[in-house]
Amino acid sequence: MIRVVLIGYGNVGFHLYHAIKPLNDVEIVQIYNRKSSFPKNLPKTTPIANSFDKLEDADVYIMTVSDDAIISVSQKIQLKSKLVVHTSGNTSMHAIDKKHRRGVFYPLQTFSIQRQINFSEVPICIETENKEDEQLLQQLAEHLGCTTHKLSTDQRRSLHLAAVFVNNFTNHLYRIGHELCESNRVPFDILKPLIKETASKLDDLTPFMAQTGPAKRGDSKTVNKHLELLENEKQKEVYTTFSQLIANLYGKEL
Amino acid sequence: MIRVVLIGYGNVGFHLYHAIKPLNDVEIVQIYNRKSSFPKNLPKTTPIANSFDKLEDADVYIMTVSDDAIISVSQKIQLKSKLVVHTSGNTSMHAIDKKHRRGVFYPLQTFSIQRQINFSEVPICIETENKEDEQLLQQLAEHLGCTTHKLSTDQRRSLHLAAVFVNNFTNHLYRIGHELCESNRVPFDILKPLIKETASKLDDLTPFMAQTGPAKRGDSKTVNKHLELLENEKQKEVYTTFSQLIANLYGKEL
Ligand SMILES: NC(=O)c1ccc[n+]([C@@H]2O[C@H](COP(=O)([O-])OP(=O)(O)OC[C@H]3O[C@@H](n4cnc5c(N)ncnc54)[C@H](OP(=O)(O)O)[C@@H]3O)[C@@H](O)[C@H]2O)c1
Ligand SMILES: NC(=O)c1ccc[n+]([C@@H]2O[C@H](COP(=O)([O-])OP(=O)(O)OC[C@H]3O[C@@H](n4cnc5c(N)ncnc54)[C@H](OP(=O)(O)O)[C@@H]3O)[C@@H](O)[C@H]2O)c1
Repeated sequence: MIRVVLIGYGNVGFHLYHAIKPLNDVEIVQIYNRKSSFPKNLPKTTPIANSFDKLEDADVYIMTVSDDAIISVSQKIQLKSKLVVHTSGNTSMHAIDKKHRRGVFYPLQTFSIQRQINFSEVPICIETENKEDEQLLQQLAEHLGCTTHKLSTDQRRSLHLAAVFVNNFTNHLYRIGHELCESNRVPFDILKPLIKETASKLDDLTPFMAQTGPAKRGDSKTVNKHLELLENEKQKEVYTTFSQLIANLYGKEL
Repeated sequence: MIRVVLIGYGNVGFHLYHAIKPLNDVEIVQIYNRKSSFPKNLPKTTPIANSFDKLEDADVYIMTVSDDAIISVSQKIQLKSKLVVHTSGNTSMHAIDKKHRRGVFYPLQTFSIQRQINFSEVPICIETENKEDEQLLQQLAEHLGCTTHKLSTDQRRSLHLAAVFVNNFTNHLYRIGHELCESNRVPFDILKPLIKETASKLDDLTPFMAQTGPAKRGDSKTVNKHLELLENEKQKEVYTTFSQLIANLYGKEL
Protein backbone atom coordinates (compact mmCIF):
# COMPACT_ATOMS: atom_id res chain seq x y z
CA MET A 1 0.00 0.00 0.00
CA ILE A 2 1.34 3.43 -1.02
CA ARG A 3 0.02 6.18 1.27
CA VAL A 4 -0.32 9.58 -0.39
CA VAL A 5 -0.97 13.09 0.93
CA LEU A 6 -2.10 15.52 -1.78
CA ILE A 7 -1.14 19.15 -1.18
CA GLY A 8 -3.27 21.47 -3.34
CA TYR A 9 -6.52 20.61 -5.01
CA GLY A 10 -6.62 22.47 -8.35
CA ASN A 11 -6.73 20.89 -11.83
CA VAL A 12 -3.98 18.35 -11.21
CA GLY A 13 -4.94 17.64 -7.58
CA PHE A 14 -8.54 17.01 -8.60
CA HIS A 15 -7.64 14.56 -11.38
CA LEU A 16 -4.98 12.76 -9.33
CA TYR A 17 -7.41 12.35 -6.43
CA HIS A 18 -10.12 10.85 -8.65
CA ALA A 19 -7.64 8.56 -10.40
CA ILE A 20 -6.13 7.28 -7.13
CA LYS A 21 -9.41 6.91 -5.21
CA PRO A 22 -10.57 3.63 -6.85
CA LEU A 23 -7.13 1.96 -6.59
CA ASN A 24 -6.60 -0.91 -4.14
CA ASP A 25 -2.89 -0.41 -3.62
CA VAL A 26 -2.79 3.35 -3.16
CA GLU A 27 -4.54 5.32 -0.43
CA ILE A 28 -5.17 9.06 -0.23
CA VAL A 29 -4.46 9.68 3.47
CA GLN A 30 -5.33 13.37 3.35
CA ILE A 31 -5.76 16.42 1.14
CA TYR A 32 -4.22 19.73 2.17
CA ASN A 33 -6.32 22.70 1.11
CA ARG A 34 -5.43 26.25 2.17
CA LYS A 35 -9.03 27.48 2.02
CA SER A 36 -11.15 26.71 5.06
CA SER A 37 -14.18 25.95 2.86
CA PHE A 38 -14.61 22.26 2.01
CA PRO A 39 -13.32 21.62 -1.54
CA LYS A 40 -15.87 20.92 -4.27
CA ASN A 41 -16.35 17.49 -5.84
CA LEU A 42 -15.12 15.53 -2.82
CA PRO A 43 -16.96 13.01 -0.62
CA LYS A 44 -17.73 14.71 2.72
CA THR A 45 -15.76 12.00 4.56
CA THR A 46 -12.46 12.91 2.83
CA PRO A 47 -9.84 13.85 5.46
CA ILE A 48 -8.90 17.47 4.80
CA ALA A 49 -6.08 19.44 6.46
CA ASN A 50 -6.22 23.24 6.43
CA SER A 51 -2.92 23.84 8.18
CA PHE A 52 0.51 22.35 7.63
CA ASP A 53 0.86 21.15 11.26
CA LYS A 54 -2.09 18.80 10.71
CA LEU A 55 -0.31 16.77 8.00
CA GLU A 56 -0.38 13.03 8.69
CA ASP A 57 2.20 10.38 8.07
CA ALA A 58 2.43 9.10 4.47
CA ASP A 59 4.85 7.55 1.97
CA VAL A 60 4.74 10.49 -0.39
CA TYR A 61 3.55 14.12 -0.29
CA ILE A 62 2.52 15.30 -3.75
CA MET A 63 2.46 19.09 -4.08
CA THR A 64 -0.01 19.94 -6.85
CA VAL A 65 0.28 23.67 -6.15
CA SER A 66 1.03 26.48 -8.62
CA ASP A 67 4.68 26.65 -9.73
CA ASP A 68 5.20 29.88 -7.76
CA ALA A 69 4.08 28.24 -4.51
CA ILE A 70 6.38 25.21 -4.67
CA ILE A 71 9.31 26.74 -2.72
CA SER A 72 7.22 28.24 0.08
CA VAL A 73 4.84 25.30 0.45
CA SER A 74 7.73 22.83 0.63
CA GLN A 75 9.31 24.97 3.36
CA LYS A 76 6.09 24.92 5.36
CA ILE A 77 5.92 21.13 5.40
CA GLN A 78 7.46 20.48 8.83
CA LEU A 79 7.86 16.70 8.60
CA LYS A 80 11.46 15.67 8.07
CA SER A 81 13.07 13.22 5.64
CA LYS A 82 9.82 12.58 3.89
CA LEU A 83 9.48 12.07 0.14
CA VAL A 84 8.05 15.37 -1.12
CA VAL A 85 7.49 15.81 -4.85
CA HIS A 86 6.10 18.50 -7.12
CA THR A 87 4.21 18.02 -10.38
CA SER A 88 5.67 20.90 -12.39
CA GLY A 89 7.31 20.65 -15.81
CA ASN A 90 9.26 23.83 -15.50
CA THR A 91 10.54 23.80 -11.91
CA SER A 92 13.82 22.36 -10.68
CA MET A 93 13.66 19.47 -8.25
CA HIS A 94 15.88 21.62 -6.03
CA ALA A 95 13.13 24.19 -5.55
CA ILE A 96 11.84 21.77 -2.92
CA ASP A 97 13.20 22.46 0.59
CA LYS A 98 16.29 20.38 1.26
CA LYS A 99 15.06 18.92 4.55
CA HIS A 100 12.93 16.59 2.39
CA ARG A 101 13.77 13.64 0.16
CA ARG A 102 13.06 15.49 -3.05
CA GLY A 103 11.42 14.31 -6.23
CA VAL A 104 9.33 15.23 -9.26
CA PHE A 105 6.19 13.49 -10.51
CA TYR A 106 5.34 15.47 -13.65
CA PRO A 107 2.29 14.32 -15.59
CA LEU A 108 2.73 15.43 -19.20
CA GLN A 109 -0.89 16.13 -19.98
CA THR A 110 -3.31 19.01 -20.09
CA PHE A 111 -5.72 18.95 -17.16
CA SER A 112 -8.94 20.92 -16.85
CA ILE A 113 -11.65 20.31 -14.28
CA GLN A 114 -14.24 20.24 -17.11
CA ARG A 115 -12.70 17.28 -18.89
CA GLN A 116 -12.11 13.67 -17.81
CA ILE A 117 -8.62 12.27 -18.24
CA ASN A 118 -7.73 8.66 -18.94
CA PHE A 119 -4.53 8.12 -16.94
CA SER A 120 -3.31 5.42 -19.30
CA GLU A 121 -2.76 8.42 -21.63
CA VAL A 122 -0.61 10.29 -19.10
CA PRO A 123 3.16 9.81 -19.33
CA ILE A 124 4.74 10.56 -15.94
CA CYS A 125 8.22 12.11 -15.89
CA ILE A 126 10.07 11.11 -12.77
CA GLU A 127 13.12 12.59 -11.07
CA THR A 128 14.35 11.75 -7.55
CA GLU A 129 17.38 12.19 -5.35
CA ASN A 130 17.60 8.51 -4.55
CA LYS A 131 16.84 5.16 -6.10
CA GLU A 132 14.23 3.84 -3.63
CA ASP A 133 12.11 6.94 -4.05
CA GLU A 134 12.32 6.53 -7.81
CA GLN A 135 10.97 3.00 -7.41
CA LEU A 136 8.11 4.20 -5.23
CA LEU A 137 7.08 6.88 -7.75
CA GLN A 138 7.35 4.34 -10.53
CA GLN A 139 5.06 1.96 -8.66
CA LEU A 140 2.58 4.75 -8.00
CA ALA A 141 2.54 5.63 -11.72
CA GLU A 142 2.11 2.00 -12.67
CA HIS A 143 -0.87 1.63 -10.33
CA LEU A 144 -2.38 4.58 -12.18
CA GLY A 145 -1.74 2.82 -15.49
CA CYS A 146 0.72 5.50 -16.63
CA THR A 147 3.93 5.03 -18.57
CA THR A 148 6.97 6.49 -16.79
CA HIS A 149 10.09 8.26 -18.01
CA LYS A 150 13.18 9.08 -15.98
CA LEU A 151 14.16 12.62 -16.96
CA SER A 152 16.60 15.17 -15.57
CA THR A 153 15.40 18.67 -14.72
CA ASP A 154 16.92 19.97 -17.99
CA GLN A 155 15.20 17.30 -20.08
CA ARG A 156 11.90 17.92 -18.32
CA ARG A 157 12.23 21.65 -18.98
CA SER A 158 12.79 21.08 -22.70
CA LEU A 159 9.82 18.74 -22.77
CA HIS A 160 7.67 21.33 -21.04
CA LEU A 161 8.77 23.91 -23.60
CA ALA A 162 7.99 21.50 -26.44
CA ALA A 163 4.58 20.93 -24.81
CA VAL A 164 3.88 24.67 -24.98
CA PHE A 165 4.37 24.51 -28.77
CA VAL A 166 2.33 21.35 -29.40
CA ASN A 167 -0.40 22.12 -26.86
CA ASN A 168 -0.78 25.84 -26.07
CA PHE A 169 0.19 27.18 -29.49
CA THR A 170 -1.64 24.44 -31.38
CA ASN A 171 -4.76 25.31 -29.42
CA HIS A 172 -4.35 28.92 -30.50
CA LEU A 173 -4.24 27.75 -34.15
CA TYR A 174 -7.53 25.96 -33.43
CA ARG A 175 -8.80 29.29 -32.11
CA ILE A 176 -7.86 31.03 -35.36
CA GLY A 177 -9.59 28.25 -37.31
CA HIS A 178 -12.65 28.79 -35.11
CA GLU A 179 -12.63 32.53 -35.82
CA LEU A 180 -12.30 32.00 -39.58
CA CYS A 181 -15.22 29.58 -39.55
CA GLU A 182 -17.43 31.83 -37.45
CA SER A 183 -16.81 34.89 -39.59
CA ASN A 184 -17.73 32.94 -42.73
CA ARG A 185 -20.74 31.11 -41.26
CA VAL A 186 -19.16 27.68 -41.53
CA PRO A 187 -19.65 25.26 -38.60
CA PHE A 188 -16.31 24.74 -36.79
CA ASP A 189 -17.37 21.12 -36.19
CA ILE A 190 -16.49 20.29 -39.81
CA LEU A 191 -12.81 20.81 -38.88
CA LYS A 192 -12.76 18.44 -35.89
CA PRO A 193 -12.10 15.17 -37.75
CA LEU A 194 -9.21 16.87 -39.59
CA ILE A 195 -7.82 18.19 -36.30
CA LYS A 196 -7.89 14.68 -34.81
CA GLU A 197 -6.40 13.05 -37.88
CA THR A 198 -3.57 15.63 -37.91
CA ALA A 199 -2.69 14.46 -34.39
CA SER A 200 -3.21 10.74 -35.09
CA LYS A 201 -1.07 10.79 -38.23
CA LEU A 202 1.93 10.90 -35.88
CA ASP A 203 1.22 7.25 -35.00
CA ASP A 204 2.59 6.36 -38.43
CA LEU A 205 4.60 9.33 -39.67
CA THR A 206 7.11 11.82 -38.27
CA PRO A 207 5.93 15.46 -38.42
CA PHE A 208 8.45 15.95 -41.22
CA MET A 209 6.84 13.19 -43.30
CA ALA A 210 3.28 14.16 -42.37
CA GLN A 211 3.56 17.75 -43.63
CA THR A 212 1.26 18.66 -46.53
CA GLY A 213 -0.18 21.87 -47.96
CA PRO A 214 0.58 24.79 -50.27
CA ALA A 215 3.72 26.03 -48.46
CA LYS A 216 5.34 22.59 -48.61
CA ARG A 217 4.60 22.35 -52.35
CA GLY A 218 5.96 25.88 -52.89
CA ASP A 219 2.52 26.76 -54.29
CA SER A 220 2.76 30.59 -54.18
CA LYS A 221 -0.52 31.02 -56.05
CA THR A 222 -2.56 29.39 -53.25
CA VAL A 223 -0.49 31.11 -50.55
CA ASN A 224 -1.22 34.51 -52.13
CA LYS A 225 -4.93 33.73 -52.53
CA HIS A 226 -5.04 32.82 -48.84
CA LEU A 227 -3.27 36.03 -47.83
CA GLU A 228 -5.87 38.00 -49.82
CA LEU A 229 -8.68 36.20 -48.01
CA LEU A 230 -7.27 37.01 -44.56
CA GLU A 231 -8.48 40.34 -43.19
CA ASN A 232 -6.91 40.18 -39.74
CA GLU A 233 -3.31 41.47 -39.73
CA LYS A 234 -2.23 39.12 -36.95
CA GLN A 235 -3.61 36.10 -38.78
CA LYS A 236 -1.78 37.25 -41.93
CA GLU A 237 1.44 37.46 -39.90
CA VAL A 238 1.00 33.91 -38.54
CA TYR A 239 0.18 32.67 -42.06
CA THR A 240 3.29 34.28 -43.54
CA THR A 241 5.62 33.13 -40.75
CA PHE A 242 4.50 29.49 -40.96
CA SER A 243 4.41 29.37 -44.75
CA GLN A 244 7.98 30.68 -44.93
CA LEU A 245 9.18 28.24 -42.25
CA ILE A 246 7.55 25.28 -43.99
CA ALA A 247 8.71 26.30 -47.49
CA ASN A 248 12.30 26.72 -46.21
CA LEU A 249 12.22 23.33 -44.52
CA TYR A 250 11.34 21.63 -47.81
CA GLY A 251 13.70 23.73 -49.94
CA LYS A 252 10.92 25.69 -51.65
CA GLU A 253 10.56 29.41 -52.34
CA LEU A 254 7.35 31.39 -52.01
CA MET B 1 -26.25 1.95 -58.29
CA ILE B 2 -24.06 5.05 -58.62
CA ARG B 3 -21.49 4.62 -61.40
CA VAL B 4 -18.27 6.57 -60.88
CA VAL B 5 -15.32 7.38 -63.12
CA LEU B 6 -12.26 8.54 -61.19
CA ILE B 7 -9.98 10.93 -63.05
CA GLY B 8 -6.56 11.06 -61.42
CA TYR B 9 -5.11 8.51 -59.04
CA GLY B 10 -3.00 10.41 -56.47
CA ASN B 11 -3.61 10.63 -52.71
CA VAL B 12 -7.32 11.40 -52.94
CA GLY B 13 -7.97 9.13 -55.94
CA PHE B 14 -6.26 6.24 -54.18
CA HIS B 15 -8.28 6.61 -50.97
CA LEU B 16 -11.59 7.20 -52.78
CA TYR B 17 -11.01 4.14 -54.93
CA HIS B 18 -10.32 1.90 -51.93
CA ALA B 19 -13.28 3.31 -49.98
CA ILE B 20 -15.71 2.86 -52.89
CA LYS B 21 -14.48 -0.59 -54.01
CA PRO B 22 -16.18 -2.63 -51.25
CA LEU B 23 -19.52 -0.78 -51.54
CA ASN B 24 -22.55 -2.55 -53.00
CA ASP B 25 -24.34 0.54 -54.26
CA VAL B 26 -21.44 2.34 -55.90
CA GLU B 27 -19.33 1.05 -58.76
CA ILE B 28 -16.01 2.34 -60.08
CA VAL B 29 -16.54 2.07 -63.82
CA GLN B 30 -13.05 3.23 -64.73
CA ILE B 31 -9.99 5.11 -63.58
CA TYR B 32 -8.36 7.68 -65.85
CA ASN B 33 -4.60 7.78 -65.45
CA ARG B 34 -2.43 9.94 -67.69
CA LYS B 35 0.62 7.68 -67.32
CA SER B 36 0.70 4.65 -69.57
CA SER B 37 2.17 2.50 -66.79
CA PHE B 38 -0.41 0.60 -64.74
CA PRO B 39 -1.03 2.44 -61.45
CA LYS B 40 0.32 0.90 -58.24
CA ASN B 41 -1.91 -0.71 -55.61
CA LEU B 42 -4.71 -1.65 -58.02
CA PRO B 43 -6.04 -5.08 -58.98
CA LYS B 44 -4.81 -5.91 -62.49
CA THR B 45 -8.43 -6.26 -63.67
CA THR B 46 -9.29 -2.60 -62.93
CA PRO B 47 -10.47 -0.82 -66.10
CA ILE B 48 -7.98 1.95 -66.80
CA ALA B 49 -8.26 4.68 -69.44
CA ASN B 50 -5.11 6.45 -70.60
CA SER B 51 -6.78 8.87 -72.97
CA PHE B 52 -9.84 11.05 -72.60
CA ASP B 53 -11.62 9.61 -75.63
CA LYS B 54 -11.76 6.23 -73.87
CA LEU B 55 -13.94 7.51 -71.02
CA GLU B 56 -17.02 5.37 -70.45
CA ASP B 57 -20.52 6.34 -69.46
CA ALA B 58 -21.07 7.01 -65.75
CA ASP B 59 -23.25 8.99 -63.33
CA VAL B 60 -20.40 11.11 -62.02
CA TYR B 61 -16.82 11.91 -63.08
CA ILE B 62 -14.71 12.77 -60.06
CA MET B 63 -11.56 14.72 -60.94
CA THR B 64 -9.02 14.01 -58.19
CA VAL B 65 -6.30 15.88 -60.06
CA SER B 66 -4.03 18.67 -58.79
CA ASP B 67 -5.75 22.07 -58.43
CA ASP B 68 -3.77 23.44 -61.36
CA ALA B 69 -5.01 20.71 -63.69
CA ILE B 70 -8.75 21.12 -62.97
CA ILE B 71 -9.49 23.63 -65.78
CA SER B 72 -7.59 21.79 -68.52
CA VAL B 73 -8.68 18.29 -67.52
CA SER B 74 -12.34 19.33 -67.40
CA GLN B 75 -11.96 20.81 -70.90
CA LYS B 76 -10.52 17.56 -72.20
CA ILE B 77 -13.49 15.51 -71.02
CA GLN B 78 -15.47 15.35 -74.27
CA LEU B 79 -18.70 13.85 -72.92
CA LYS B 80 -21.48 16.44 -72.73
CA SER B 81 -23.96 17.29 -69.97
CA LYS B 82 -22.33 14.89 -67.55
CA LEU B 83 -21.90 15.54 -63.83
CA VAL B 84 -18.21 16.43 -63.46
CA VAL B 85 -16.89 17.38 -60.01
CA HIS B 86 -13.55 18.33 -58.53
CA THR B 87 -12.33 17.59 -55.00
CA SER B 88 -10.49 20.83 -54.28
CA GLY B 89 -11.03 23.11 -51.28
CA ASN B 90 -9.63 26.17 -52.91
CA THR B 91 -10.98 26.05 -56.48
CA SER B 92 -14.20 27.59 -57.71
CA MET B 93 -16.87 25.25 -59.05
CA HIS B 94 -16.77 27.43 -62.17
CA ALA B 95 -13.22 26.34 -62.97
CA ILE B 96 -14.89 23.24 -64.46
CA ASP B 97 -15.69 23.57 -68.16
CA LYS B 98 -19.22 24.82 -68.66
CA LYS B 99 -20.27 22.06 -71.05
CA HIS B 100 -20.59 19.87 -67.93
CA ARG B 101 -23.08 19.78 -65.08
CA ARG B 102 -20.63 21.14 -62.54
CA GLY B 103 -20.11 20.24 -58.92
CA VAL B 104 -17.67 19.96 -56.03
CA PHE B 105 -17.07 16.97 -53.79
CA TYR B 106 -14.46 18.26 -51.34
CA PRO B 107 -13.36 15.83 -48.63
CA LEU B 108 -12.10 17.87 -45.68
CA GLN B 109 -9.34 15.53 -44.55
CA THR B 110 -5.62 15.05 -44.96
CA PHE B 111 -4.83 12.14 -47.27
CA SER B 112 -1.47 10.43 -47.65
CA ILE B 113 -0.87 7.13 -49.39
CA GLN B 114 1.02 5.90 -46.29
CA ARG B 115 -1.93 6.22 -43.96
CA GLN B 116 -5.35 4.57 -43.91
CA ILE B 117 -8.40 6.82 -43.67
CA ASN B 118 -11.68 5.96 -42.03
CA PHE B 119 -14.25 7.65 -44.27
CA SER B 120 -16.72 8.03 -41.41
CA GLU B 121 -14.23 10.70 -40.29
CA VAL B 122 -14.36 12.58 -43.59
CA PRO B 123 -16.83 15.46 -43.86
CA ILE B 124 -17.71 16.04 -47.52
CA CYS B 125 -18.43 19.61 -48.65
CA ILE B 126 -20.82 19.62 -51.57
CA GLU B 127 -21.63 22.29 -54.14
CA THR B 128 -23.59 21.74 -57.37
CA GLU B 129 -25.32 23.72 -60.09
CA ASN B 130 -28.55 21.80 -59.71
CA LYS B 131 -30.57 20.01 -57.06
CA GLU B 132 -30.57 16.46 -58.50
CA ASP B 133 -26.80 16.44 -58.72
CA GLU B 134 -26.61 17.59 -55.12
CA GLN B 135 -28.75 14.61 -54.13
CA LEU B 136 -26.55 12.22 -56.08
CA LEU B 137 -23.38 13.52 -54.40
CA GLN B 138 -25.10 13.36 -51.05
CA GLN B 139 -26.04 9.72 -51.63
CA LEU B 140 -22.52 8.91 -52.73
CA ALA B 141 -21.15 10.49 -49.54
CA GLU B 142 -23.67 8.60 -47.43
CA HIS B 143 -22.69 5.28 -48.98
CA LEU B 144 -19.13 6.12 -47.95
CA GLY B 145 -20.35 6.78 -44.40
CA CYS B 146 -19.38 10.47 -44.60
CA THR B 147 -21.25 13.45 -43.19
CA THR B 148 -22.10 16.08 -45.82
CA HIS B 149 -22.22 19.85 -45.78
CA LYS B 150 -23.66 22.13 -48.45
CA LEU B 151 -21.18 24.98 -48.82
CA SER B 152 -20.74 27.80 -51.33
CA THR B 153 -17.38 28.32 -53.04
CA ASP B 154 -16.64 31.21 -50.64
CA GLN B 155 -17.48 29.15 -47.57
CA ARG B 156 -15.42 26.24 -48.84
CA ARG B 157 -12.48 28.59 -49.48
CA SER B 158 -12.62 29.91 -45.91
CA LEU B 159 -12.81 26.38 -44.60
CA HIS B 160 -9.80 25.38 -46.67
CA LEU B 161 -7.91 28.36 -45.28
CA ALA B 162 -8.92 27.40 -41.72
CA ALA B 163 -7.74 23.87 -42.50
CA VAL B 164 -4.30 25.21 -43.39
CA PHE B 165 -4.06 26.71 -39.90
CA VAL B 166 -5.34 23.69 -37.96
CA ASN B 167 -3.61 21.07 -40.10
CA ASN B 168 -0.53 22.38 -41.96
CA PHE B 169 0.58 24.91 -39.33
CA THR B 170 -0.29 22.65 -36.42
CA ASN B 171 1.85 19.95 -37.99
CA HIS B 172 4.72 22.43 -38.17
CA LEU B 173 4.33 23.07 -34.44
CA TYR B 174 4.62 19.29 -33.97
CA ARG B 175 7.79 19.51 -36.04
CA ILE B 176 9.22 22.17 -33.71
CA GLY B 177 8.28 19.99 -30.72
CA HIS B 178 10.08 17.11 -32.41
CA GLU B 179 13.23 19.21 -32.93
CA LEU B 180 13.23 20.40 -29.32
CA CYS B 181 12.92 16.81 -28.07
CA GLU B 182 15.63 15.49 -30.37
CA SER B 183 18.12 18.18 -29.45
CA ASN B 184 17.60 17.46 -25.74
CA ARG B 185 17.57 13.66 -26.04
CA VAL B 186 13.94 13.30 -24.95
CA PRO B 187 11.78 10.78 -26.85
CA PHE B 188 9.17 12.65 -28.95
CA ASP B 189 6.74 9.80 -28.19
CA ILE B 190 6.19 11.25 -24.70
CA LEU B 191 4.36 14.16 -26.35
CA LYS B 192 1.94 12.10 -28.41
CA PRO B 193 -0.78 11.58 -25.77
CA LEU B 194 -0.73 15.34 -25.07
CA ILE B 195 -1.01 16.10 -28.80
CA LYS B 196 -4.04 13.81 -29.07
CA GLU B 197 -5.70 15.16 -25.94
CA THR B 198 -5.19 18.74 -27.21
CA ALA B 199 -7.23 17.77 -30.28
CA SER B 200 -9.82 15.72 -28.37
CA LYS B 201 -10.47 18.46 -25.82
CA LEU B 202 -12.48 20.20 -28.56
CA ASP B 203 -15.16 17.51 -28.11
CA ASP B 204 -16.06 19.26 -24.86
CA LEU B 205 -14.60 22.76 -24.98
CA THR B 206 -14.24 25.60 -27.50
CA PRO B 207 -10.61 26.50 -28.30
CA PHE B 208 -11.15 29.66 -26.26
CA MET B 209 -12.12 27.65 -23.17
CA ALA B 210 -9.49 24.95 -23.75
CA GLN B 211 -6.54 27.37 -23.75
CA THR B 212 -4.01 26.89 -20.93
CA GLY B 213 -0.36 27.77 -20.35
CA PRO B 214 1.95 30.56 -19.26
CA ALA B 215 0.87 33.14 -21.87
CA LYS B 216 -2.79 32.79 -20.93
CA ARG B 217 -1.93 33.25 -17.23
CA GLY B 218 0.25 36.28 -18.07
CA ASP B 219 3.13 34.37 -16.45
CA SER B 220 6.07 36.45 -17.80
CA LYS B 221 8.58 34.58 -15.63
CA THR B 222 7.94 31.27 -17.39
CA VAL B 223 7.72 32.94 -20.81
CA ASN B 224 11.13 34.54 -20.28
CA LYS B 225 12.65 31.28 -19.03
CA HIS B 226 11.38 29.57 -22.17
CA LEU B 227 12.80 32.29 -24.42
CA GLU B 228 16.18 31.80 -22.72
CA LEU B 229 16.02 28.05 -23.37
CA LEU B 230 15.30 28.52 -27.10
CA GLU B 231 18.44 28.77 -29.21
CA ASN B 232 16.84 28.87 -32.65
CA GLU B 233 15.84 32.42 -33.67
CA LYS B 234 12.86 31.23 -35.75
CA GLN B 235 11.51 29.19 -32.83
CA LYS B 236 11.94 32.24 -30.56
CA GLU B 237 9.94 34.30 -33.07
CA VAL B 238 7.10 31.74 -33.15
CA TYR B 239 7.14 31.57 -29.34
CA THR B 240 6.94 35.37 -28.98
CA THR B 241 4.23 35.80 -31.62
CA PHE B 242 1.95 33.14 -30.10
CA SER B 243 2.55 34.20 -26.51
CA GLN B 244 1.62 37.80 -27.36
CA LEU B 245 -1.49 36.71 -29.28
CA ILE B 246 -2.66 34.46 -26.45
CA ALA B 247 -1.89 37.01 -23.70
CA ASN B 248 -3.81 39.72 -25.63
CA LEU B 249 -6.78 37.44 -26.14
CA TYR B 250 -7.09 36.92 -22.37
CA GLY B 251 -6.36 40.53 -21.45
CA LYS B 252 -2.92 39.79 -19.99
CA GLU B 253 0.40 41.56 -20.46
CA LEU B 254 3.75 39.87 -20.86
N1 LIG C 1 -2.99 21.98 -15.41
C1 LIG C 1 -2.17 21.25 -16.12
O1 LIG C 1 -2.52 20.92 -17.26
C2 LIG C 1 -0.85 20.79 -15.58
C3 LIG C 1 -0.21 19.73 -16.24
C4 LIG C 1 1.02 19.25 -15.72
C5 LIG C 1 1.56 19.82 -14.60
N2 LIG C 1 0.92 20.88 -13.99
C6 LIG C 1 1.57 21.43 -12.77
O2 LIG C 1 0.81 21.02 -11.65
C7 LIG C 1 0.84 22.05 -10.64
C8 LIG C 1 -0.59 22.46 -10.31
O3 LIG C 1 -1.21 22.94 -11.49
P1 LIG C 1 -2.78 23.12 -11.56
O4 LIG C 1 -3.12 23.37 -13.00
O5 LIG C 1 -3.46 22.03 -10.84
O6 LIG C 1 -2.94 24.50 -10.79
P2 LIG C 1 -4.28 25.15 -10.19
O7 LIG C 1 -5.47 24.53 -10.84
O8 LIG C 1 -4.06 26.61 -10.26
O9 LIG C 1 -4.26 24.69 -8.66
C9 LIG C 1 -3.25 25.08 -7.80
C10 LIG C 1 -3.60 24.63 -6.41
O10 LIG C 1 -2.55 25.08 -5.56
C11 LIG C 1 -3.09 25.80 -4.47
N3 LIG C 1 -2.14 26.82 -4.07
C12 LIG C 1 -1.65 27.83 -4.84
N4 LIG C 1 -0.78 28.59 -4.13
C13 LIG C 1 -0.76 28.04 -2.88
C14 LIG C 1 -0.08 28.39 -1.69
N5 LIG C 1 0.75 29.43 -1.65
N6 LIG C 1 -0.29 27.62 -0.62
C15 LIG C 1 -1.11 26.56 -0.66
N7 LIG C 1 -1.78 26.19 -1.77
C16 LIG C 1 -1.61 26.93 -2.84
C17 LIG C 1 -4.38 26.39 -5.02
O11 LIG C 1 -5.23 26.74 -3.96
P3 LIG C 1 -6.42 27.82 -4.16
O12 LIG C 1 -7.52 27.08 -4.90
O13 LIG C 1 -6.75 28.18 -2.77
O14 LIG C 1 -5.87 28.97 -4.99
C18 LIG C 1 -4.89 25.23 -5.85
O15 LIG C 1 -5.52 24.26 -5.06
C19 LIG C 1 1.69 23.17 -11.21
O16 LIG C 1 3.03 22.96 -10.78
C20 LIG C 1 1.60 22.94 -12.72
O17 LIG C 1 2.73 23.45 -13.40
C21 LIG C 1 -0.28 21.34 -14.44
N1 LIG D 1 -4.22 15.31 -50.30
C1 LIG D 1 -5.15 15.83 -49.54
O1 LIG D 1 -5.05 15.74 -48.32
C2 LIG D 1 -6.37 16.50 -50.15
C3 LIG D 1 -7.49 16.72 -49.31
C4 LIG D 1 -8.63 17.30 -49.83
C5 LIG D 1 -8.68 17.68 -51.16
N2 LIG D 1 -7.58 17.50 -51.96
C6 LIG D 1 -7.70 17.91 -53.37
O2 LIG D 1 -7.81 16.74 -54.18
C7 LIG D 1 -7.16 16.95 -55.44
C8 LIG D 1 -6.08 15.89 -55.62
O3 LIG D 1 -5.14 16.01 -54.57
P1 LIG D 1 -4.07 14.85 -54.28
O4 LIG D 1 -3.44 15.15 -52.98
O5 LIG D 1 -4.69 13.53 -54.51
O6 LIG D 1 -3.03 15.16 -55.44
P2 LIG D 1 -1.85 14.21 -55.95
O7 LIG D 1 -1.55 13.14 -54.97
O8 LIG D 1 -0.78 15.13 -56.40
O9 LIG D 1 -2.50 13.50 -57.22
C9 LIG D 1 -2.90 14.25 -58.35
C10 LIG D 1 -3.32 13.31 -59.46
O10 LIG D 1 -3.69 14.11 -60.57
C11 LIG D 1 -2.99 13.69 -61.71
N3 LIG D 1 -2.76 14.85 -62.58
C12 LIG D 1 -2.10 16.00 -62.27
N4 LIG D 1 -2.09 16.83 -63.32
C13 LIG D 1 -2.74 16.20 -64.31
C14 LIG D 1 -3.07 16.55 -65.65
N5 LIG D 1 -2.70 17.73 -66.18
N6 LIG D 1 -3.76 15.65 -66.40
C15 LIG D 1 -4.14 14.49 -65.88
N7 LIG D 1 -3.87 14.08 -64.62
C16 LIG D 1 -3.18 14.94 -63.86
C17 LIG D 1 -1.70 13.12 -61.19
O11 LIG D 1 -1.12 12.27 -62.12
P3 LIG D 1 0.48 11.91 -62.07
O12 LIG D 1 0.59 10.88 -60.98
O13 LIG D 1 0.71 11.39 -63.44
O14 LIG D 1 1.20 13.20 -61.77
C18 LIG D 1 -2.21 12.39 -59.95
O15 LIG D 1 -2.77 11.16 -60.30
C19 LIG D 1 -6.64 18.38 -55.42
O16 LIG D 1 -7.62 19.23 -55.98
C20 LIG D 1 -6.50 18.67 -53.92
O17 LIG D 1 -6.63 20.06 -53.63
C21 LIG D 1 -6.43 16.91 -51.48
